[in-house]
Amino acid sequence: MTIPHGLLPEGLRDRLPPEAAAQTRIARALLDTIATHGYDLVSPPLVEFEEGLTGRLMEGRAKDTLRFVDPVSQRTLALRPDITIQIGRIASTRLASAPRPLRLAYGGPILKLRASQLAPAREIMQVGAELIGRDSVAAACEIVQVAVEALRATGVESVTVDLTLPDLVETLAGRVLAVEDIAKLKTLLDMKDAGALIAAGFSDWLPLMATTGPVTESIEKLRAFNHAGLLTSRIDGIAAVAEAIGDAARVTIDPTERHGFEYQSWFGFSLFAENISGEIGRGGSYVIVGPDGSEEPATGFSLYPDALLESPIPANAPTLFVPLGIPPVLAAQFRNEGYRTIAALDADCDAAKLGCSHRLTNGKAVLL
Amino acid sequence: MTIPHGLLPEGLRDRLPPEAAAQTRIARALLDTIATHGYDLVSPPLVEFEEGLTGRLMEGRAKDTLRFVDPVSQRTLALRPDITIQIGRIASTRLASAPRPLRLAYGGPILKLRASQLAPAREIMQVGAELIGRDSVAAACEIVQVAVEALRATGVESVTVDLTLPDLVETLAGRVLAVEDIAKLKTLLDMKDAGALIAAGFSDWLPLMATTGPVTESIEKLRAFNHAGLLTSRIDGIAAVAEAIGDAARVTIDPTERHGFEYQSWFGFSLFAENISGEIGRGGSYVIVGPDGSEEPATGFSLYPDALLESPIPANAPTLFVPLGIPPVLAAQFRNEGYRTIAALDADCDAAKLGCSHRLTNGKAVLL
Repeated sequence: MTIPHGLLPEGLRDRLPPEAAAQTRIARALLDTIATHGYDLVSPPLVEFEEGLTGRLMEGRAKDTLRFVDPVSQRTLALRPDITIQIGRIASTRLASAPRPLRLAYGGPILKLRASQLAPAREIMQVGAELIGRDSVAAACEIVQVAVEALRATGVESVTVDLTLPDLVETLAGRVLAVEDIAKLKTLLDMKDAGALIAAGFSDWLPLMATTGPVTESIEKLRAFNHAGLLTSRIDGIAAVAEAIGDAARVTIDPTERHGFEYQSWFGFSLFAENISGEIGRGGSYVIVGPDGSEEPATGFSLYPDALLESPIPANAPTLFVPLGIPPVLAAQFRNEGYRTIAALDADCDAAKLGCSHRLTNGKAVLL
Repeated sequence: MTIPHGLLPEGLRDRLPPEAAAQTRIARALLDTIATHGYDLVSPPLVEFEEGLTGRLMEGRAKDTLRFVDPVSQRTLALRPDITIQIGRIASTRLASAPRPLRLAYGGPILKLRASQLAPAREIMQVGAELIGRDSVAAACEIVQVAVEALRATGVESVTVDLTLPDLVETLAGRVLAVEDIAKLKTLLDMKDAGALIAAGFSDWLPLMATTGPVTESIEKLRAFNHAGLLTSRIDGIAAVAEAIGDAARVTIDPTERHGFEYQSWFGFSLFAENISGEIGRGGSYVIVGPDGSEEPATGFSLYPDALLESPIPANAPTLFVPLGIPPVLAAQFRNEGYRTIAALDADCDAAKLGCSHRLTNGKAVLL
C-alpha cells in the first residue's frame, strides 16, 4: 500500500500561516524574557546515542522515546523526548568547569514515540531555563519568577503557579515509618483518598491532605501540621517563593503532589494559565549526576509552547550584576533599558566570573 | 561496550554559548528579511513517511536520508534531509487553493545519514523562500534579490551570485543532436574538458565553455554564441536578473553548470560570500508535481546558515502591494518603515487576493 500524497504520520503535522508565525512569536517572547535574566542559549542535537538520552530519563519518558539503529555508527540512536537531560549532560561535561551558578536556556523540538488523545502531537516544542549549581530558596524564587515573567511576555493574562514539596513525605515519614509503610502512605496520598488513609491507619496524615489550596491558607495549615518542626525549612522556602511571585501570578500549594516530579527534590511547581487547558510547564529543584557519579544541585523549568525557538540575546547585551538585597523592581528597570541582569544568589557569586559587564552600585550600572 | 558519558554520535554536536546565540541571530536576520518581502512562514514536521520525503528527492539526497520503522504506524519514516520538498507538498495539497503567486518561507533543522569530511555535520539548518506559481524572469529577479538581501542582513559583506542555465544544453542540442549525443555532450561539458569536446566532434560547443565568467563578458559571449537565436529568451532573462541584483552582489555566470541543479528548469543560482568557503545557498526555477501529476512552476532558494529559526513576521504587519514598474528603492523605503511589500510580478497579481492591506499608489501606501 502506498501512502496517499500529502498524508503525514499520526501525531505529525504541518504548521501553516498564520499558526507557524504566531507560535514562533510566542517562543521568541519566552526566550527573550529568559535571556534578559542572563540565561545563555545552548543547542543540543535532535538525536543522540540512546544510552545518553534514556539512561537518566524517568521511566515514563524512556518508554516514550523513538529509537532507531544508525547505519553509520551501528549504534541505537534516539530522537530526544526531552531537552532538560541534554542540558544536564552539557553542564556536567563540556561546561563542568564553567562558573556556577550556570544559567542555561534552551528551546527546540522534541519527539515522542506515541501520540495520545490528551497529547495528540508527537513533535512538540520545549523551552526552558536551568540554573545549575544551586537548589536554594533564592534559586527557586528566581526560576519561578523567570518562568512566570516569560509566560506573561507571551500575552498570557493570568498565570497560576501550583507549588509542591516532592520529598515532603520522605522527610516526615522517614523519621517515624518503615520503608514499606512510606510507599503505602505515598500511594494513598497520591490517590487523595481520605477514607483509605484512615482505614490504613494513617489518620495522622489526614491534615496534610487538607493543606492543599490557595497559598496563605495552605501555609497556615502546613505550619499547624508541622508540630515536630521537621517541615520548617520547606514551609519557609515555599512561603518565600510565593512572596517572590507576588501579584505576578495566582499561587496555590499542593504539598503532596508528586506526579511528574519524580526527579525533583525539595521543591517543584506547575504552571497554568487562564483559558488554557492542562499544564503549560513545570519545574523545580533536582540533582544532576556527573560522569563520575558526582551530584550537583540545580533548579529549572520547562515550558511547552509548541513553537519554533531562537536566541533572543542581543549582540553584546550589557550584563548587569545585581548584588544581594536589591529590590527586584530596580533590576527590572535595567532589563527594560536593555540590560541583562544576573542576580547574586549568595555571597559566592562573582560578577566578573559570571561574565557581567556592569555592577549595580548605588542604583547605577557601573562598568566593571 | 557502553558509550562514554557525554559522547555524541559522529556528525552531531552541542552548540554552546556564544555559538548557539550567534547562529540564531543569523537565522533571525535571514527570516526577518525574507518576511519583509511578504513570505509567510510554514513549519513542516521533522519526520514524514519515507515515500513522501524521498519519492521526489534527487537521488543523491534520497540515498542520504536517515530512515527507520515507526513502531506505531509500522511504516518506514524518514528524518527530512531537505525542507524544500515539504514546501512543495504543502503547496500542492493543503495550500493548493491558496492564491498564486504563493510566497512561503521556512526554516529548521535537517538531518543527513552521513557526515563527510567536507560536510561533517549530520544535523544542519536550512532556511529558504519559495515563490510558487511563477518561474518568470520577474520571479527569478525577486528570488535572487531576496536571497542576497537576506544574506547581507546577516552581516555578510560581499556576496557573489553565480548564475546558471540548467537546461541550456537540452534547449540548444535538442534541435540538432540525437538523445545519446546530448547525454555525451553534457558529460563532457560538466567535465569542462575542451580536448575531449573536440575529440568527440563537439568543437562547435567550445565557445560555450568560454562563456563562463563575470556577467558582462559572459553575456556578450553568450549572445555571440547564440547564432541560431535559440538562447535569446534565456540570455535576456539572465541579463535581467543580473541587472536586478545591481551592486548588491558580485555576479558571475556559469551557463553549463548543472551539478546540484538537477531539479532546476531554465534558471539556477549559487550563493557565495567573501571569506566563507563553499556555497552558502542555491536556488532557481523548478516544477512542483501535484498529487494528480499536474505541474506547477516555482522559483525559490535555500540557505544553510546552520542556525535555529523563527518567524520574524510582526503581528498584523501592514502588507503593501507594489504594482508593476515601481522602482525597488521605493518599496525598500516602505519595508524600512515596517511594511511587508508584495511586488506585482505580472498583471494577474491581485493585491486583495494576495492579502495586502495597502497598495502603493502615487508614492503613498493607500489602505485597500
